[in-house]
Amino acid sequence: MAPAFEENSSLDPSQTPLHQSLSNAGAVSAKSKVTIVGSGNWGSVAAKLIASNTLKLHSFHDQVRMWVFEETLPSGEKLTDVINRTNENVKYLPGIKLGKNVFADPDIENAVKDANMLVFVTPHQFMDGICKKLVGKVNKDVEAISLIKGMEVKKEGPCMISNLISEQLGINCCVLMGANIANEIAVEKLSEATVGYRENKEIAEKWVQLFTTPYFIVSAVQDVEGVELCGTLKNVVAIAAGLVDGLEMGNNTKAAIMRIGLREMKALSKLLFSSVNDSTFFESCGVADLITTCLGGRNRKVAEAFAKNGGKRTFDDLEAEMLQGQKLQGVSTAKEVYEVLSHRGWLELFPLFATVHEIAIGHLPPSSIVKYSEHKPMSLV
Amino acid sequence: MAPAFEENSSLDPSQTPLHQSLSNAGAVSAKSKVTIVGSGNWGSVAAKLIASNTLKLHSFHDQVRMWVFEETLPSGEKLTDVINRTNENVKYLPGIKLGKNVFADPDIENAVKDANMLVFVTPHQFMDGICKKLVGKVNKDVEAISLIKGMEVKKEGPCMISNLISEQLGINCCVLMGANIANEIAVEKLSEATVGYRENKEIAEKWVQLFTTPYFIVSAVQDVEGVELCGTLKNVVAIAAGLVDGLEMGNNTKAAIMRIGLREMKALSKLLFSSVNDSTFFESCGVADLITTCLGGRNRKVAEAFAKNGGKRTFDDLEAEMLQGQKLQGVSTAKEVYEVLSHRGWLELFPLFATVHEIAIGHLPPSSIVKYSEHKPMSLV
Repeated sequence: MAPAFEENSSLDPSQTPLHQSLSNAGAVSAKSKVTIVGSGNWGSVAAKLIASNTLKLHSFHDQVRMWVFEETLPSGEKLTDVINRTNENVKYLPGIKLGKNVFADPDIENAVKDANMLVFVTPHQFMDGICKKLVGKVNKDVEAISLIKGMEVKKEGPCMISNLISEQLGINCCVLMGANIANEIAVEKLSEATVGYRENKEIAEKWVQLFTTPYFIVSAVQDVEGVELCGTLKNVVAIAAGLVDGLEMGNNTKAAIMRIGLREMKALSKLLFSSVNDSTFFESCGVADLITTCLGGRNRKVAEAFAKNGGKRTFDDLEAEMLQGQKLQGVSTAKEVYEVLSHRGWLELFPLFATVHEIAIGHLPPSSIVKYSEHKPMSLV
Repeated sequence: MAPAFEENSSLDPSQTPLHQSLSNAGAVSAKSKVTIVGSGNWGSVAAKLIASNTLKLHSFHDQVRMWVFEETLPSGEKLTDVINRTNENVKYLPGIKLGKNVFADPDIENAVKDANMLVFVTPHQFMDGICKKLVGKVNKDVEAISLIKGMEVKKEGPCMISNLISEQLGINCCVLMGANIANEIAVEKLSEATVGYRENKEIAEKWVQLFTTPYFIVSAVQDVEGVELCGTLKNVVAIAAGLVDGLEMGNNTKAAIMRIGLREMKALSKLLFSSVNDSTFFESCGVADLITTCLGGRNRKVAEAFAKNGGKRTFDDLEAEMLQGQKLQGVSTAKEVYEVLSHRGWLELFPLFATVHEIAIGHLPPSSIVKYSEHKPMSLV
């Protein structure tokens, strides 16, 4: 099942030469083995960051295993084979060396079985299936971290990915979020991220150590839910910011909408989880990720086009035309948030979130985003 | 001294027809008279906002007096005469009607003598002279508000404009700051602002009432220093953001620099004034004004040019070329902040603020803005 093994035997710890095993025997047993579950654009960048650190830090095994959803490339080769031969994810992060110590494994069960630390970075809709597959297949004391932005918001509240992982696999799960445009990090431009942890600060520090590089600055806060909700709710604000861009309202208005959006993100997170801290929203996962997402990003871009068309072309239509199959998370999150707000009687408390959804479904014109006072109380502002 | 009076007798309260004086006698005595000290771009927009409200609100005199630094226009007419005839500040806010109830007065002592509420909105370098001129000339119980961004930061700490007004005139002084590009508010695009007050919440609410319109949303926080420091320190961050733009580092890095800047603004404000609240930085004066200033604004623009020239042309040189006589507040504030940090031994705590100054004076190359780790501890990050 894992043909890549033979080709990369020097990187496979099970193949470690005897003299090395012996000389490192004591240390090896204490070293953490890291596996990355996912190998898209962000997953590949995460592999690069982590692999540069495991080589330097004595508390980690050099090798980083990366589960790759196997694909056959146009050349006829398997994606894992190419990654292991060239150290490049030619499909999702071409031109960037991941590090020779990254080992692509197409077999998810094999990839996780010896891991002490699991990094989840797949599209969020795959996570339910992946968790089901991994039940009973991971070490009991394995630590996990989720880099997955955008979880499902259900009527009874948001179903968070870190929680899904924790509950289904019976393990602890941190999160890492922030202003992370994968391609910019890949070329080593300064960036930041936030680790959110539940209780164990030592584990959080270990994740920080594993991800931090001179150009990728990571800090930890004890607030899993706050960090994770930032990563999702910002996409709704990005829709609002894009509408303002499309309406050509100027920087004042855009800044006001982003601020109101940040305030609603904070207020909703705190209503949903009383443990959420205000200070989390000053971290990279909060204000910085919001800025990045509202300056660039596909939610902003499609919403701008929506407003420029006066709302006459639907988001579905524009998404199909502009995103080549990628999905617009902000619109679906806005719908889910609206359902939560409606279910709990909070619609009037969140005029921006509510208005984004009402605009997206065509009940209000795009210009409503800046006309709260006409139809909504500015209760949060 | 006040020739405009005759031309606008219907707007001069001292000329109120007798029957009106009699019928409103009780109410008139309780109504607040508002005078605006300053009539530049932002001062004129403030006059428009306020004048629209005094007409609607019973607790204010309809007339808003505006002190205008008299100028003779190319036509040979006096600026005050033209404002009073056309209701337009043809020099500093052409094309916008201020309201018929705005009365331009070239005599500052006359303008303030009956006022119960004074709005200060002049260039900050004029305030010392203006205060000296007004000593003993204002009502003892007059309330003041400062819209002036950028105060002097001295070694012993910042000399804040609201404090200058309070101390020199012996009166209470609030502040109003926010993401306020005057020309955007003038054309009634949605914008926000924050009133900072010291103790008297009722007065703060009165200022909120006086400024709020459907497109200008004002809220009050009990934190004069925090609000006022936001208005100054953001200009240093805007220099940093402009450098990142000039270096073409992308949105991730710009968002990271803005976030670190916001964090240093908060940390320095709290070190200087223990009364400063974290939550102030979530208000319009904090995160929203920072976003506006780092997206547009002259500090950002000139810093971008500075970085594009590899630091080979000085800020003075670029300022002279690009700003037609306007001054670059961020560079001088960065210098003043640096002196405070140096004097107090805090330089290492504020790598971003310190680096901006060191780049501006040519001691470090522009690219240092994203290279903390090479020369500074990331102590705040």
